[in-house]
This record gives sequence, structure tokens and C-alpha cells, in this order.
Amino acid sequence: MKLNCDMGESFGSWVMGKDDAVMPWIDMANVACGFHASDPDTMAKTVRLASQHGVVIGAHPSYDDKVGFGRRSIPHTLNQIKHLVAYQAGALDAICHQYQTHISYIKPHGALYNDMMSNVKMYEAVVGAVASLPGNQGLMLLASSDMTDYSKIAESYGVNLIREAFADRAYTSGGSLLPRNRNGAVLKDNEAIERQVLQLAKEGTVTSIDGEEIKLDVDTICVHGDNESSIAMIEQLKKALDNQS
Amino acid sequence: MKLNCDMGESFGSWVMGKDDAVMPWIDMANVACGFHASDPDTMAKTVRLASQHGVVIGAHPSYDDKVGFGRRSIPHTLNQIKHLVAYQAGALDAICHQYQTHISYIKPHGALYNDMMSNVKMYEAVVGAVASLPGNQGLMLLASSDMTDYSKIAESYGVNLIREAFADRAYTSGGSLLPRNRNGAVLKDNEAIERQVLQLAKEGTVTSIDGEEIKLDVDTICVHGDNESSIAMIEQLKKALDNQS
Amino acid sequence: MKLNCDMGESFGSWVMGKDDAVMPWIDMANVACGFHASDPDTMAKTVRLASQHGVVIGAHPSYDDKVGFGRRSIPHTLNQIKHLVAYQAGALDAICHQYQTHISYIKPHGALYNDMMSNVKMYEAVVGAVASLPGNQGLMLLASSDMTDYSKIAESYGVNLIREAFADRAYTSGGSLLPRNRNGAVLKDNEAIERQVLQLAKEGTVTSIDGEEIKLDVDTICVHGDNESSIAMIEQLKKALDNQS
Amino acid sequence: MKLNCDMGESFGSWVMGKDDAVMPWIDMANVACGFHASDPDTMAKTVRLASQHGVVIGAHPSYDDKVGFGRRSIPHTLNQIKHLVAYQAGALDAICHQYQTHISYIKPHGALYNDMMSNVKMYEAVVGAVASLPGNQGLMLLASSDMTDYSKIAESYGVNLIREAFADRAYTSGGSLLPRNRNGAVLKDNEAIERQVLQLAKEGTVTSIDGEEIKLDVDTICVHGDNESSIAMIEQLKKALDNQS
Repeated sequence: MKLNCDMGESFGSWVMGKDDAVMPWIDMANVACGFHASDPDTMAKTVRLASQHGVVIGAHPSYDDKVGFGRRSIPHTLNQIKHLVAYQAGALDAICHQYQTHISYIKPHGALYNDMMSNVKMYEAVVGAVASLPGNQGLMLLASSDMTDYSKIAESYGVNLIREAFADRAYTSGGSLLPRNRNGAVLKDNEAIERQVLQLAKEGTVTSIDGEEIKLDVDTICVHGDNESSIAMIEQLKKALDNQS
Repeated sequence: MKLNCDMGESFGSWVMGKDDAVMPWIDMANVACGFHASDPDTMAKTVRLASQHGVVIGAHPSYDDKVGFGRRSIPHTLNQIKHLVAYQAGALDAICHQYQTHISYIKPHGALYNDMMSNVKMYEAVVGAVASLPGNQGLMLLASSDMTDYSKIAESYGVNLIREAFADRAYTSGGSLLPRNRNGAVLKDNEAIERQVLQLAKEGTVTSIDGEEIKLDVDTICVHGDNESSIAMIEQLKKALDNQS
Repeated sequence: MKLNCDMGESFGSWVMGKDDAVMPWIDMANVACGFHASDPDTMAKTVRLASQHGVVIGAHPSYDDKVGFGRRSIPHTLNQIKHLVAYQAGALDAICHQYQTHISYIKPHGALYNDMMSNVKMYEAVVGAVASLPGNQGLMLLASSDMTDYSKIAESYGVNLIREAFADRAYTSGGSLLPRNRNGAVLKDNEAIERQVLQLAKEGTVTSIDGEEIKLDVDTICVHGDNESSIAMIEQLKKALDNQS
Repeated sequence: MKLNCDMGESFGSWVMGKDDAVMPWIDMANVACGFHASDPDTMAKTVRLASQHGVVIGAHPSYDDKVGFGRRSIPHTLNQIKHLVAYQAGALDAICHQYQTHISYIKPHGALYNDMMSNVKMYEAVVGAVASLPGNQGLMLLASSDMTDYSKIAESYGVNLIREAFADRAYTSGGSLLPRNRNGAVLKDNEAIERQVLQLAKEGTVTSIDGEEIKLDVDTICVHGDNESSIAMIEQLKKALDNQS
């Protein structure tokens, strides 16, 4: 079970996140590509840091929206989605090549991620963009109980899916994320978070908000390193997963 | 002798150049990469058009300056230059892959081109960036009588140089371009332009503003397709070169 | 009856529209403010041109979206709308002051205009922004048969409304624009266009797509100067209106 | 003697500076206008905060360069400088009006400030832009021993100058700032900083790096609130100045 985290979201003189503190504890870095955050130099710095820690690098493309941090859904045609994703992934991969590494997967960011998950045509456009890239890239997406539709499309393009769960989010009995505006949507208790992650890793299940045990096949856990306590949590999860295996 | 031309310099709803009319007559398209002009969709459109006409595609990176169209020199460190060039070239190459093609060379744009030609450290940074890209990319630069220094650096990085001359610019006896603010710097007479191009192609020489015949090894001629008469000139040159060979 | 037209929609080196040809025939120029189009220098050029022709200047603010030309609806809170409108209107007004003139009204552009017309809270946010500006600015909006709700809100803020109709768009019997995807939505016949404009000016009515005569109080007609035939149409309308009065 | 500080230099989701902690201790806030930093919403937030603390608001315009934070000199014509300054000042003033306040002065940022101080034509362009704004705006600039040339130009445009010194920078015997790359250029000792500020306030003099006492007429001291110790220093200076007067 891998830990993935959004990284390289600084921009010019503005710092966001403590990448130096987070990078040692994660397995996969979703690296911003200059559209919702970052710039060529920040990308290079992030790529070097990931390389030093042996962290696998993924492109983290988004809508072109720095002021909104890629969190606003901006209307795009399917072809525009394809070009948007390829542009950013190619840019990051070229920077990776300057530091003797390469991207291994794509994880769309923010509103682009949400739109991809909720709109099957947009999902297929993203899959198509990923398939067109050199190097057999994977696509990271949200794990749910029934991935059949997502898998079929990905297979038809020869794209490998990387399914992620969230360490600190509650799940419904239907196997989807409990919406953020619902009671208990975000787990605040470190023990509960660790328990959920270990259960996902060991049993391939999650206990829903209603107490049901649901099957959830997951390849990676998404973590966030916004502050010192969340970074400590990442370290705790990493060590717990290492002990388990 | 190849003709190269800047292409794909529209941006969003703004149209620049008549790419449809120019593309049939050129051999190499310097395609803008979204920093001085263009956007992912315009890049895709330009790549498709070049493919349809069998035109070789080069990345045309620049400083990040749409309002100044990449014509203003903006201070950069050498590392920033490397990242700037790689980012844009990688982005275009990924879009090329979506249309079953690829970039073959890099030609910096505007102020970045001028700064590269006049500053050997910046030149080396660009060469390094080109060398780091996948696929054995060439670097297009300004031909002059003595390319020794440029060639040595390129060779040390394993980068192939593509030397360009200008169809409509007068040369000094030293083998460099007569500055634009000097009398006769720009050739206005179509016959004179054709004569200069054919002489470069056949003899490998150019007649300077002072009437001297100077050796100038050139791989490609840079043409501009801003308006109908200049597009007609491109067609004329292409046909003259084809007849000659 | 005034003619209004979007002006100053060039950006940096990219030219859009033939402002020089259009400006002599219009009464009110909706001047882009740098968010969907234009830049400080283009704004200054447009302001000078409007001044030379005695054309009243309005600010034409939009969502911050050059690549989409302000035509994409981007989620904003109401406070964000207020700041967005004030920022752009203030910027243009300051440039106007450099050329001894000033803005007189605000007309939102593209998706911001459409969102304002369809969402009463957003409309009120725009009205609030207009009211906060120095100098008793008007707000240009789409005329329809029943403006009661719009008028009440505008009155409560002390904002004067400027109601516009479209010269070349068909109207429903309900007094609203026939959607663009419907047959006959856009008038193509110059005589029909002139007839509609003169009827609006003289009778304060429009003949709907179903042949009904509907009351429509209008202060200004929106025209477009995209190409030579549309510019000729503007001249024709201006002369017809002048003859009539 | 007033304290001035750059404020509102966050951008979208990126936070820079602790404006909440600094604002209570300063007299004049140089508010970023969206070109090197900030956006309409951040500007509004900064304006409200300044108003709450009775802090005078100045526009802090810059070159259009977020990734370089306005610290890179970008070539501009004099007319472009005028439009650039007016655009940003007008935008901020309109946002101020939404919160029942207004700008009182202009202080160019970063490279624009340095270019203005070192190039008299650019200085005059900025003065002209300031003069064109509504409301009798002042211009904040670097104090030096001989301000004659600056003053003459400002007077000819009717612009009031606001001369600033730096709390923590050493001065040469010529009355100019000791360049940053020289030993002792930046005062590190809090007592020395306080002594310099109080001497400027009380005696209108500064003791140069060579120990000479130089006359320096100053209206305001520029302070920086980057971290907790520098914010504590601002509070200390504010209290020392208040005690003195």
C-alpha cells in the first residue's frame, strides 16, 4: 500500500506545503505542473527532491486557474481536456528528464479530478490523453466499490489504473466518500485514521459510517501534508504500513 | 535547403498569421508553446496541420510573456533557462504524441533567441536543455561565418545544430546580419530575396551589403508569412528551391 | 437610440476587430479591461480613439479568462463578483483620466453578462459594484418585456439602467431573445435588421418570431463590428437612426 | 515619522506575510495591485484590514510578473509605464471605494521602483501617471541627500513626494543606501535599527557607514514584516516613535 501526496504546489515566491518534511514519508508525489500551481523552477526543485527520496513522480495537471487553485470547474470540450492533460504531463516529464527521472502516472487535480470522476466522457478523454503519452503512464483515480465502468474504458486504451482511498475520509455503505458537508465526513482521530488505512491495506475493506464492512480495492492512500500535525500523521501511517508488511 | 517559419502563434480567440496558407510551402514549422503565444488547443491544431503537410515540427519556446509576445528580454538564471526550455518543448512534444508525431528540434523565440546568440552561457544552458530532451533534438540558431564556438559546445552535449539564414536580411562582410536600423537591412525586392536564397542554397555564400561574397553554411532559411505578399514570396522561394535541386 | 459596440478587444500583439472603422459610427464603446481581452496599452489606445470620436466609454469587465475570451462561466462568490467588477472598472477609469475622460457605465462581458442576467443574486452583486464606483455609473443590461425586478434592485442602489436590444437577434413573443440554436434566431437580412432597429427606436416595439408586436423599452442597440459587412451595417444603422430623429 | 510596509502580497490560495499582525503597528500600507502579487479579493481583504486599523492606503503597482514577484526589470516604453501605473492604482482605488476608503499615494514595487529611481525619464513617467489620477495622490520614493531633481519634476506635475528611508539599511556618506552586497549593508542589531529610526525622526540625520552624520529629510520609514522577529521590531519602532513625539 503506497502513500501519495500532492507536492510542488508553491508558485514563484509563494510557498505552499512543507515538501521537505513530507517527501521522506511518501511513495508517490503528485507534482503540480504550472496550471493551478507551480512554475518550471518549482517543478524542477520538486522533481529533484522526489528523486533524492526515491519517490515515484506523477503529473498532477489541472484546469488553468492559479487564482482559484484549480478548484473551480471551468467548461472544456473533450478535446480541450486531452490537450490540457498532455501539455502539463509532457512539460513535467521533460523537466524530469533533466534530472534523470520521468513521470510514471497522471493524477488530475481539484475540479478536473472531480469532473473526471463524475463525467464518463471526460474520464475517457483523460484516459485517452494518458494513453497518448510516451512511457505507459498510469492514471490515479478515486477507488469505489464498483470500478467496472472505469476499468473497461481504461483497458480499452491500455491504461493502468491506480486506485486511491483517503486516509481521513469516511465512506458510505455504498463504498463512496461521505460528502464533506455530512457529520463525520472527515476523520479527526489519528487512531481511527491509522485503523482505516491498515484495514484497507490488510483486509482490502473499509468500515462505512453505518458500521458495515465494505470491500474496497485500493492501491494507494492519499495523504495531505498541510501542517505539522498532518505531517506527523503521514510519518505514523508510513511506519505502520512498513511494520505491517 | 529547407524553409522554416514560425507557426501557431494564435492565442485563444486571437488569430495571428495565416498558417493554412503558409504550411503547404514550408519544410519546418517552429511551433509556439504557450509562453509568448498559443495554448494547448492552438498547439494541437498547428501540429495536425503540420502533420497533414509532412512538415517537420520544432518547439519554439520563449520567455513567459504573452503581452510582450516574447520580444522583451526578462532576466533569468541559467537554471531557469533550462527549465523554461524543457517545460515548453516537453509540452509540445506530448501534444505531438497525441497526433502520432513528435518534435525534431528547438528554436528559441524572440528575446530568448537573441539572448542565446549573444550570451554564450545562456547558449550553453539552452544546449543543455535540448540535450536533456528525449529523442535527439536539434537546435536551430543563427548562421554566421564563424560558428566554431557554438559548434564546440553543441558537440560536447551531442546536440545537432541547424543553422538558419534570413531570406530578406542583408549581411555584413563579417558574415553577420546588418542591424535592422541600418539602411538596406531588410531586402524589399523579391528578386533580390530569391537570388540571396538560391545563392545560399547553391553556393553556400551570401553577398554582403558591401558587395563581398562571403561563405555562409546554412541548413535552412527563415521566412515569415505575415501577409499575402509575404506568403506569395514563400511559395516563390519554395518553387525556386525545388526547381534548383 | 444609441448604438453600442464591444471595443478594444485586442491583446498585446494580437489584433481583434477593426476599431478604427467602427468607432466613427457608434455612440457607446464597451471597452475591455484586461481580463478577457486587452491590456493597459490597448485600453489607452481605445480610450483615445473613443475620445476623438466623442464616443461615451463604458467598462466591459469579465471573468479572468483570456484563453476562453470570457465566454466560460467560472464559479465566483458574490463578493468575488463585486471585487472583479470594481477592479476592472477602476483600472479603465484611471486610464481614461490620463486622457481627460472617464467611464460612464458598466456592461459585463460574455459569461459574466449571461450569469448576471440569469442569476438575481449575481445581478445584485454587479449592481452593488456599480453603485460603489465614483461618478454615478450606469449599468447596461439586456432589455426584456418585464424589467420590474431588475429595476427595483437598481433603484435601491441608485444605479441607472441602460437597456440594450440586439440589432440582429429575433425575439420571442415573451419579449426575450430567441435562443441561438433556434431557426431564425439571427437576422441575416440587412433590411430586416434596419427595420427592427428603427421600430425599436420609433415605436418602442419589436415584432416577435411569431409575428406579434411586443413592447420593448430600449435605450441602446448592441452592434458587432467583426468584419467589413457588419461594419457597413453599423454605418447603415447609424445613418438610418440619424435620419429618423 | 510614519511607518510604511508592503501589504496584501498573498495571491489566491498562497499566503505571504502576516498582515493581521503587522497592520496594527504601521501607518501606511503599500497594497499590492494584482501584477506582482494579489488579486481583487486579496486586495479587498487588505483594504478592509487597513481601514479597521486606520492605516493610510497606497497603491503598490509593479511590472506584470507574478512568477518573478515584480523583481525583474522588464523593458517598457514610457507610455507603457504610465498605463501600467494608472491601471493598477485605479483598480485598487475602486476596491477601496467599495469599503468607503481610497488610496492616498503610489509606491512602485520592486524592479519598477528601482528603475524609477535610476532612470529620470521613467521617474517622470511615473510622476505623470500619479498626477493623472483623481484625488491628489502622493508618490513615495527613496530619500537621499539631494532630492532636487526629483522634487523639481514632481512640483511641475503638482505631485507631493513622500520620502522614505529604510530602518535596517546602512547609508553611505553620500546619503544613499549602501549596496546589499557590501559588508554591513543590512543592520541586524535591533538597538542600532531603533537608534537609526529615532535619529531620522528627531534629528533628520543618519549616521553613515563611515561614521559621518548626514542630513536626510524623511517622511516615512519602510519596514518589513516577513517573520515574527521582524514584526516584533515593527512594534518596537512604533512604540519608540510614539513615545518620542
